[in-house]
Order: sequence, then C-alpha cells, then structure tokens
Amino acid sequence: MRKEIRVIQYGVGSIGAEIARLLLQKREVRLVGAVDNDPDKIGWDLGRVAGVGRDLGVIISDDATQVLKTQADVVIHCTSSCLPDVEKQLMECVDAGHSVISTCEELVYPFRKHPHLSNNLDSEATKRKVAILGVGINPGFLMDKLVLTLASACQRVNAVEVTRIVDAGCRRLPLQKKIGAGLSLNEFSALVASGQIKHHGLPESVAMIADSLELRVEDIRETIRPVIARTLFQTSFLEVQPGQVAGICQTACGIASGEKVIQLTLQMYVGAENSVDEIRLQGVPALHCRIPGGVHGDVATAAVVVNCIPPLLEARPGLRITRDIPMRYFPTDSQ
Amino acid sequence: MRKEIRVIQYGVGSIGAEIARLLLQKREVRLVGAVDNDPDKIGWDLGRVAGVGRDLGVIISDDATQVLKTQADVVIHCTSSCLPDVEKQLMECVDAGHSVISTCEELVYPFRKHPHLSNNLDSEATKRKVAILGVGINPGFLMDKLVLTLASACQRVNAVEVTRIVDAGCRRLPLQKKIGAGLSLNEFSALVASGQIKHHGLPESVAMIADSLELRVEDIRETIRPVIARTLFQTSFLEVQPGQVAGICQTACGIASGEKVIQLTLQMYVGAENSVDEIRLQGVPALHCRIPGGVHGDVATAAVVVNCIPPLLEARPGLRITRDIPMRYFPTDSQ
Ligand SMILES: NC(=O)c1ccc[n+]([C@@H]2O[C@H](COP(=O)([O-])OP(=O)(O)OC[C@H]3O[C@@H](n4cnc5c(N)ncnc54)[C@H](OP(=O)(O)O)[C@@H]3O)[C@@H](O)[C@H]2O)c1
Ligand SMILES: NC(=O)c1ccc[n+]([C@@H]2O[C@H](COP(=O)([O-])OP(=O)(O)OC[C@H]3O[C@@H](n4cnc5c(N)ncnc54)[C@H](OP(=O)(O)O)[C@@H]3O)[C@@H](O)[C@H]2O)c1
Repeated sequence: MRKEIRVIQYGVGSIGAEIARLLLQKREVRLVGAVDNDPDKIGWDLGRVAGVGRDLGVIISDDATQVLKTQADVVIHCTSSCLPDVEKQLMECVDAGHSVISTCEELVYPFRKHPHLSNNLDSEATKRKVAILGVGINPGFLMDKLVLTLASACQRVNAVEVTRIVDAGCRRLPLQKKIGAGLSLNEFSALVASGQIKHHGLPESVAMIADSLELRVEDIRETIRPVIARTLFQTSFLEVQPGQVAGICQTACGIASGEKVIQLTLQMYVGAENSVDEIRLQGVPALHCRIPGGVHGDVATAAVVVNCIPPLLEARPGLRITRDIPMRYFPTDSQ
Repeated sequence: MRKEIRVIQYGVGSIGAEIARLLLQKREVRLVGAVDNDPDKIGWDLGRVAGVGRDLGVIISDDATQVLKTQADVVIHCTSSCLPDVEKQLMECVDAGHSVISTCEELVYPFRKHPHLSNNLDSEATKRKVAILGVGINPGFLMDKLVLTLASACQRVNAVEVTRIVDAGCRRLPLQKKIGAGLSLNEFSALVASGQIKHHGLPESVAMIADSLELRVEDIRETIRPVIARTLFQTSFLEVQPGQVAGICQTACGIASGEKVIQLTLQMYVGAENSVDEIRLQGVPALHCRIPGGVHGDVATAAVVVNCIPPLLEARPGLRITRDIPMRYFPTDSQ
C-alpha cells in the first residue's frame, strides 16, 4: 500500500468543492485542512460545504497561516485566475513546506507573462524542496498538454489549431453569467472592457505550445467577441432572448514571422449544438483529433487536479508545468 | 544550448533507418555507432543504408560488443518483437552503461508476460544508473499512453475500447506481407498457427491500461482472424483477389469478473476505407476521441522513439514505461 497523502484544500468554491468530493474517493488521501475567506463558509465543516453529505472533522478557516502549519504533502489551491493575485497565497504554501497544485490559469505557463514572478516561485519551491504546478482542463490539458502529447507522435510540427465549443446551456449559473449570457451587447462590451468577462488561460496555452514546439512565436494576440442568440434559449437558470448575448467567442493566436502558427478558439455559449474539442497539428504526420461532445470542464478539472497528485509528488522540486508531468489516472483503490 | 546527445543505432531495418534519418534533424544528436547483422548492411555506412543520401562516417557492424564500447548516452534498439529474443541485446547495452529506447513490442509493458525478465532488466538498469524504455506507436502510444493521458481527465474509468483501422494498401510491402495480404485462407491459417502472422503488443497495451486504471483484469484474451477481400485490390506491390486474404483483424481484451472491461481491436488490411484511431472511455466523464485517417505507423513510431530521448535521459534509472514518461515533442533546433 502507498503511504497516506495529506491534503489541504485552499479555496472551497465550485471547483474546490468538486475536488474535495473526488479526493474522498482516493483511499490514500486524507483531507487535513481547509481554507476559504467566504464568510458563508468560515467555521463550517468542509464536508458540509463541499456537499459530501457528512462531516469530515475539517473546519474551514480563513486563517491560511494557521492551517498551513498542519503537516501535509500537498495544497490544492483554487481561489482565482491571475498570478499576481495569488502569488502571496502560493508563496505561503511553499514556505510552509507544501507542494501545490493550483487551478490558477496563469500558473499553467507563467514564464512569458510573469517571468520575474515565475522565477521567484521556482527558486523558493526549489529551496524548500517542493513542487508547484498549475493545471485544469483549459488551460492545463485540452489546449496544451494534450496537444503536446499528440505532438510526440510527430516528426515535425509546423502549426497548431485547437477549437473548443462548449454548450453553456447545460452548465452552472456562475459559468453562464461569466460568459455574459442574457446581456445586451452594450452590457457585454462594458464587462469585457472592465475585464469581468474573460476566459483566462488561452495565451498561456499558446505560449506553452509555442515554446515546446519551438514555433518561434514573437507575438500572442487575443480577441473576445460575443455570440449573439438568434432564437430564444431557456436554461435552468436564465433566459436568452434573440439579439441578446448567448456567450463568448474568444481566440488567442501565436504569430511567428507574421504568420499565424497557433490558433486557439474557445466558443462557450448557451445553445451551442456542436460541442467538441478539436486539435489539428500541421506537420509530419499531420494529426487531427476530435472529441465529439467535448469534455465537461468542471468534472474534468477536478479530475486532472487530483490525478496530478501522485506524479507531482514524484516530480523534481520547483515550478513544474503539465508538459513535463506524466499525466495519468490516480487509481481509486477503494473500489 | 543543451549538451550533445550521443546515440548508437542498434538494428537498421525499416524502422531503424527511419529513426536514423530523423535523428539527423536534431542538432544536439550525434550518431556515433550502428549495429546490424544483415550481411547486406555490415561494412556499409549508416547514411547510405538509411537512405540519408550522404555518408555519416558511421560504419554498420555486427559486432555489438565492440560498438557498445563507444561512449554514448542512449542506444536506439530496433531488432525484433519478443522480449526473450532481445534480452541479451538489451542487457549488453545496459551493461555497457547506455540508456536504451527499444521498439521491441513486448518491452512496452513486460511485467505481466515476463515478470522475471522485467525484474532482471530493472535491477540491472538501476544498478548501472541508466533507464530503459519500450515504445512505438502501437504498442507504446495510441492504445495505451494516449488512453492513459485521456484518462487523466476522468474522475473514474470503468471500461476502455480502442479501435485502430489501418489501410495497408498504401503501406510498404513487408507490412502487406506481414498481414497476409494476397494469401489463401489456408495459407493464412498456417502462418497464424506458426506465429508468423501476428501483430505484437496488443496484450501489452491491455495490461498497461488494466494495471494503471486498476481495472482488476485477471485474464487477457487474444484473437486473430483474416479480413477477406470482396473485390479486387491492387497495391503498388501486390494484388489481392476477391476471396483472398486482405489482412488481419486482431483483438485483445481484458476480462475482470467475467466482464470485458478492455477491448482493443486492430484491423489492418488492403482496401480499408475508414482508417481511424478511436478511443472510448466509459467513466466520469465518458470520453470519446477520434483521429480520423489514423496515425501513420512507421512515421509516428520513429517520432515517438526520438521524442522520448530527452525525457528518458531525465527519468529515474531502471525499467520505465511510457505511462510514466512525459511524452512531448523534441524540438528540432536546427530549423
Ligand atoms: N484551468 C482551468 O481549467 C480551470 C477550471 C476551473 C476553474 N479554474 C479557476 O479556478 C479558480 C477557482 O474556481 P471556482 O469556480 O471554484 O471559483 P469560485 O467559485 O469563485 O471559488 C473560489 C473560492 O475561493 C475563495 N477565495 C478567494 N480568494 C481567497 C483567498 N485569498 N483566501 C481564501 N479563500 C479565497 C472564494 O471566497 P470568496 O467568494 O469570499 O472570494 C471562493 O470561496 C478560478 O480562478 C477559476 O477560474 C480554472
Ligand atoms: N511498437 C511499435 O509500434 C513498433 C512499430 C514499428 C516496428 N516495431 C518493431 O520494431 C522491430 C524492428 O522493426 P523493423 O520494421 O525495422 O524490422 P526489420 O526491417 O526486420 O529490421 C530489423 C533489423 O535488425 C536486424 N537484426 C535483427 N536481429 C539482430 C541482432 N541480434 N543483432 C543485430 N541486428 C539484428 C535485422 O537484420 P536481419 O534482417 O539480418 O535479421 C534487420 O536489419 C520489429 O520487431 C517491429 O515489430 C514496433
């Protein structure tokens, strides 16, 4: 039998809760602490907040410093998307001697946007002999790790195209709101301008692909535009009238010598009928890979995070990226 | 700049030659030795035999012991399919202090069929501080590594189905012969009975999946049957008459508590119209992944072998498997 793996859950929002539920299915894992600063969660048992249906004897606290004193092997960190916002949180985990897996999108490949910060995290983690990793389904898997895994069957890759179409109609309300479903065009534009409507992580995936395939990308460009509803859509949570915003179409591309060599497109809107994840590698051999129906974001994000625990604990200390982690299934053992 | 990687090519048949040509595109790689026991190749320059179009100053020798004295980082080994046949060859490489990547199908996951031999290889490699890996496109990637990579996005996997359909009509003559194209049913049956018609590696892929997903497979069953031509097919090399054998349909399945939980099917025949690689994971979430047209076996086998060099040289010493190697692209650097 493997030794016990002690886990602290940092951030018990929708992803953190899904992860906590999955962790409970792994026999070796023991949840030993929980951090969140939402007043509605502080002081409550993690099991109750995460919808486990029973108490776990782990009380959610907003005092990270105190909780991080608990002896643990890894912190699962799920609070927010931009690296500068979570730098201190991550540093505190590392300084407490814990490895970290985070769903922070910018941590998936932080070297281009935050070189200085990446360097700090890497040296601190190396010094403390722990490893730190950013991962999720997108970024972290579908538009980067899976692309690079497929590229291992290529003698040469000249260009990469990835398209992800998600029907937001069957997803949870926060996601439908995050993509602006039901807004007018003006409301949508205002929220895009203020940075409130934006899927994070596309440029990180472009950068990971570019640097790993040596595509010499010197410029990464992003666009966000609305997808407009043509007919009425009714989800379990809201209504989208014709002419209103149904969701987003977001792209990021990598430009090398004036040519678009990487093109990532994410369409996430209420009423999308052709959900799919699709990867095209131009090269020798050319490779085209389709996942009809696409991969469910929340379910799969919890999965990749938890599945990364054993390989991360075996990885070299420092700031790691999914490219260099042999991602595989973490056997449940309790079947 | 990375340091030079010194490579010995052991076996210069069709795959070994394809690999040698690809190695020449990697700036850090230096080919420093070549072994083969085919009288038509011994004494000739590797560049000439591998169809590079120029001499490389590396003469092919059948004296492995002598060639392996050359200082090198890794031996690329491509001679044959059954582990007991190549055990001595691999041991000699390891004893000479070289890491090894081999296309020997049974090395891809040797633990079930050859536990004792696996153990010997692992301890010897560990002792010599080198790593050894079996890899190719199938086994080694499409029906095992890629399956397990996709499974890293699953919270649970209950069953796996992989189908690979290859149109052998546009492949090389040895492959068309290997699958019995153009034979009568009787000739085919005789060659199957004598073990001469058989794609190696399906049970190895079943075993890798079973053990990695904890599917508790207690029995692995194999079948080989002919695909019969309905109409006349003419390849560049041979003719298949209606009623003759067009190729093979081979399966391997993993049985757990009487249920088929893993089903791998390889159809390789002249005239196949719907070439595809297709993976279905039953689980949470269910995942269906299609590579329309399929992946070209020889081209991609050379690719995965060469792309595995950098991660294998960073891997822990011992007998490794593709599951635990972060397979990715080896940048060419010389673009
Ligand atoms: N890479 C991917 O594929 C992927 C997939 C899914 C999610 N993500 C990212 O993962 C993060 C979490 O997602 P989510 O959906 O669970 O978000 P969420 O529902 O907003 O949950 C975040 C939780 O963390 C808490 N929190 C925020 N800052 C904190 C701090 N400094 N200390 C302690 N607790 C803090 C929040 O409390 P308050 O509500 O009080 O702030 C909230 O309870 C998001 O950034 C999301 O974009 C990435
Ligand atoms: N996993 C995969 O996806 C995958 C893909 C492709 C190939 N493979 C396997 O890789 C192996 C090589 O494939 P191939 O198509 O290149 O075969 P091949 O054309 O038969 O070439 C093998 C070469 O190795 C030489 N050789 C055999 N035994 C030797 C020994 N003991 N010492 C030195 N040289 C020796 C052979 O010489 P002689 O002709 O004199 O014997 C021949 O030149 C096969 O077993 C094949 O099934 C696996």
